[in-house]
Amino acid sequence: MKDTWQQYLSGCAEQIETVLDQLLPQPDNQLHSAMRYSIMGGGKRLRPALFMATLDACGMVNKMRLLPFAAALEMIHTYSLIHDDLPAMDDDDYRRGRPSCHKAYNEAVAILVGDALLNEAFCQMLAIRTDTVLSAENLVAAVKEVAVAAGIKGMIGGQAADIAVAGQRVSLEHLRKIYLGKTAALFHAAIISAAILAKANQQQIAALSAYTGRLGLAFQIADDILDVNGDQQQTGKPVGSDAKNAQSTYVSILGIDAAQEAAKTMAEQAVAELAVFGDEASMLRSAAKFFVERNC
Amino acid sequence: MKDTWQQYLSGCAEQIETVLDQLLPQPDNQLHSAMRYSIMGGGKRLRPALFMATLDACGMVNKMRLLPFAAALEMIHTYSLIHDDLPAMDDDDYRRGRPSCHKAYNEAVAILVGDALLNEAFCQMLAIRTDTVLSAENLVAAVKEVAVAAGIKGMIGGQAADIAVAGQRVSLEHLRKIYLGKTAALFHAAIISAAILAKANQQQIAALSAYTGRLGLAFQIADDILDVNGDQQQTGKPVGSDAKNAQSTYVSILGIDAAQEAAKTMAEQAVAELAVFGDEASMLRSAAKFFVERNC
Repeated sequence: MKDTWQQYLSGCAEQIETVLDQLLPQPDNQLHSAMRYSIMGGGKRLRPALFMATLDACGMVNKMRLLPFAAALEMIHTYSLIHDDLPAMDDDDYRRGRPSCHKAYNEAVAILVGDALLNEAFCQMLAIRTDTVLSAENLVAAVKEVAVAAGIKGMIGGQAADIAVAGQRVSLEHLRKIYLGKTAALFHAAIISAAILAKANQQQIAALSAYTGRLGLAFQIADDILDVNGDQQQTGKPVGSDAKNAQSTYVSILGIDAAQEAAKTMAEQAVAELAVFGDEASMLRSAAKFFVERNC
Repeated sequence: MKDTWQQYLSGCAEQIETVLDQLLPQPDNQLHSAMRYSIMGGGKRLRPALFMATLDACGMVNKMRLLPFAAALEMIHTYSLIHDDLPAMDDDDYRRGRPSCHKAYNEAVAILVGDALLNEAFCQMLAIRTDTVLSAENLVAAVKEVAVAAGIKGMIGGQAADIAVAGQRVSLEHLRKIYLGKTAALFHAAIISAAILAKANQQQIAALSAYTGRLGLAFQIADDILDVNGDQQQTGKPVGSDAKNAQSTYVSILGIDAAQEAAKTMAEQAVAELAVFGDEASMLRSAAKFFVERNC
């Protein structure tokens, strides 16, 4: 199962990178070059892959027309990383083993590149052709899911809650709130927007919504564990950076064994939520398992 | 006529501020407080007023349902000001006579508040109820106009072109490109999105498009003139700041008389473009005249 998701993910990543290359402006000025530098610098393309896997689960026909929507999710993820890395925020000089955008270019460019990718994501989502199969009503609802997830109730709320407690010990409840905003919200939007576009029924959407809540937390807890016992060569991040920054994590609060148990349980619960689906959701099941067994 | 537009503008501003107050989150944390601080700190609400005036020109019925769309335009304008004011960008400590967002709070909050207002704008536009009068197809097309204007071909492209030549003398052609992006693009989107939502015909949209190109440039040239001979009490900006920063403007390139003539001609041309409309476009005509006769 693990290999299956990894193959699927790798196939999706290739498609998304082809589409990103087509959609992004030619590198004819510094802003455009920096946009490409930031988004083409690796990345697992998890959110686009979850989006595509949900289209499969819900039986979307002709899903290739939605690749620009999937690519837009990666643009939003990248915008958030660029802004989070800025000196005034998390002040990270490296991202995926390369200088972060403000180090490779400068702060002004990094602020604008983040803004540009966020706007470009909306341009691309709203440029999806609608017709009798894919209605404009559903496109509006799907893009709105993404906008809400990226906003104050999602990613921005999570980042604000995170920097508000930088260097302080926080409760598991507060940490959960941060993770739900910073990570789970965009996973949720990737999956639910795909379900809406594929005309999933209410029962399917409820199941996917329950799945995705578990999935986002499981992913982030696994991240905390990798920060302790991961391999820097594989994760691309220095091991032990959370402890060094006195950052509260599931591991620092619960200990590594209980954190591992929590991630595993959440992934199992995520899979259990998909009972309403048959084999067509096999990639989403496989993804949940991979999320907590991964080494990068 | 001048008084008429000013009255209309003042009425719109009141409505928009009421709607913003309803739409924005309660100030229950620093991020939410800073969002309110930035957007409720004055501002003429020009873009929402142009949007509403265009709905009038195109005979939109029940236009009040679109007030959140108009408010979203103000959110996007405010987001761009907050990010432009940052130390890495234009480094402005004051905005409308008060400390700019990063001075009143801090840089991390200012980056996030800008991001939050941009996302919230999309949330609000996409939350407009659609039906047989206001179709989802038209809502998608209208929001897309705004996304494109805010993006690399519009506001962000303009700001990038601006900071790329900071402190350098530039040609009138380059300056025009900067102004078209930084100022005219969002005016254009405010007017064309309203026309789309009001189901304007192709002839009307072409006329409005020609009008808005002239209008945005006329507005920005008038701004350059006010920087030379304005009254700081009324403009809220220090007089002579462009010259102090060696900033190229229409005035520095053409001289004040020719700049005044250019602004006046463009405003007249803008009005002439509206010949296809009757009295219902009187506010748009009045706006163009006011834009070049204003003292703030």
